[in-house]
Amino acid sequence: MKILLKLKYNGRDFCGYQVQPGKRTVQGELNRAAKELFGFDCDVTGCSRTDSGVHANVFCATLTKSGCPYITSSVSTDRIPVALNAHLPVDVAVFSAEEVGDGFHPRYSVIYKEYEYRIYNAPVRSPFEEGRSWHIPYVFSSDDVAKMNCAAQHFVGEHDFTAFRASGSSSGQSVRTVKYASVIKEGDVVSFKVAADGFLYNMVRIMTGTLVSVGRGVLDPDSIPDIISSLDRSRAGATAPPDGLYLNKIVY
Amino acid sequence: MKILLKLKYNGRDFCGYQVQPGKRTVQGELNRAAKELFGFDCDVTGCSRTDSGVHANVFCATLTKSGCPYITSSVSTDRIPVALNAHLPVDVAVFSAEEVGDGFHPRYSVIYKEYEYRIYNAPVRSPFEEGRSWHIPYVFSSDDVAKMNCAAQHFVGEHDFTAFRASGSSSGQSVRTVKYASVIKEGDVVSFKVAADGFLYNMVRIMTGTLVSVGRGVLDPDSIPDIISSLDRSRAGATAPPDGLYLNKIVY
Repeated sequence: MKILLKLKYNGRDFCGYQVQPGKRTVQGELNRAAKELFGFDCDVTGCSRTDSGVHANVFCATLTKSGCPYITSSVSTDRIPVALNAHLPVDVAVFSAEEVGDGFHPRYSVIYKEYEYRIYNAPVRSPFEEGRSWHIPYVFSSDDVAKMNCAAQHFVGEHDFTAFRASGSSSGQSVRTVKYASVIKEGDVVSFKVAADGFLYNMVRIMTGTLVSVGRGVLDPDSIPDIISSLDRSRAGATAPPDGLYLNKIVY
Repeated sequence: MKILLKLKYNGRDFCGYQVQPGKRTVQGELNRAAKELFGFDCDVTGCSRTDSGVHANVFCATLTKSGCPYITSSVSTDRIPVALNAHLPVDVAVFSAEEVGDGFHPRYSVIYKEYEYRIYNAPVRSPFEEGRSWHIPYVFSSDDVAKMNCAAQHFVGEHDFTAFRASGSSSGQSVRTVKYASVIKEGDVVSFKVAADGFLYNMVRIMTGTLVSVGRGVLDPDSIPDIISSLDRSRAGATAPPDGLYLNKIVY
């Protein structure tokens, strides 16, 4: 039996999810907290790697005893969130723990994931948005937002997203299926949500940069299919900063 | 001519609004930024003092040349927010500047102020709410919230709020007129808003602690009038922590 943890983290002060020597990472904090709680080394396996500064509203990870495909302990599963949180810093919190079978893998069992990208869209930066969004002082009209949403619909479906992958990132399969995408504005926040069976490196951030070019009138919404089929990274927009990116939902 | 500044600040890393020697304060940052921008000492006069850890969605302050009832400069008024923000840290931002007459006083000209108190009401703390709300893991039902809202209605009107003032705080006038009050729940946040012509020391935080006692069933909503008329601080609830308190609106 493995334990599937669901957690949130504020990525601002983390060098991403994955353990790196000498760096503060989410996985590093989870490993330390689990060892403190259970008294033995544990393996924490995440659903995804997130970059430095990227956040998670929902992140899934399995917990096993180090070197074992399972974990047994005197801590009952429903008590694990509160017990682990007592050992975790304020910028990461486990909100659910459940038992899953040995065959479950937090990354390979994913059906689809949803990311949200938050743009803080007001003339002046907000002290409450620091590290949590991309501040764009040019205020998009509702017409601009509608164009961005139209453009986003062209992402939906099965495509080779090479044009939306960081140049120089590792080769391999670049076809992904986008399930849905939307751009809405609520108050001062423009939110881009996109769900897919998988994402290439920097894919959501490049999509966001491209949608911003559409909103500013630099790109036509209907240019997206051409950009996709070009397989040319230089045709898409800039890579949006990590601050606005949130892993938002994982469906198994 | 004075300049009326409207600003936001995240109070988490400030020792309150007002200048104190050797402490990081909002007024201290504004004084420094204004001197850097204009090249001479300025007086920044705030609408209110806020305590350490308390936030402002809207805070008003006037800006004058030190020792003068006015300011003249080569920076046009509409450019002041962007120009000042370039000299301010990320946790404070000016979003508006306008010219007001010499008779205007940011504190004495206030007709009413609105505060909001945010309770993060979910079983597990959130990494995005650290320093920004009061985490109460006991989840209030919609019935509990309705009771809290009923209780809050008893604050409305002209009352002596001595029972809702920090004990030991300076004497003086303790009658205030509450214009409106409401408690609502949206998602995981219970929000208490209250507007009045003035507030006694810790008044909103003690009101909040009292409403939480109502929500938990410790106090009856209809006990509020008795608590008010008792003038007895010990009859009201605990003082809620500063983290959840936001100065939200100033009406002149």
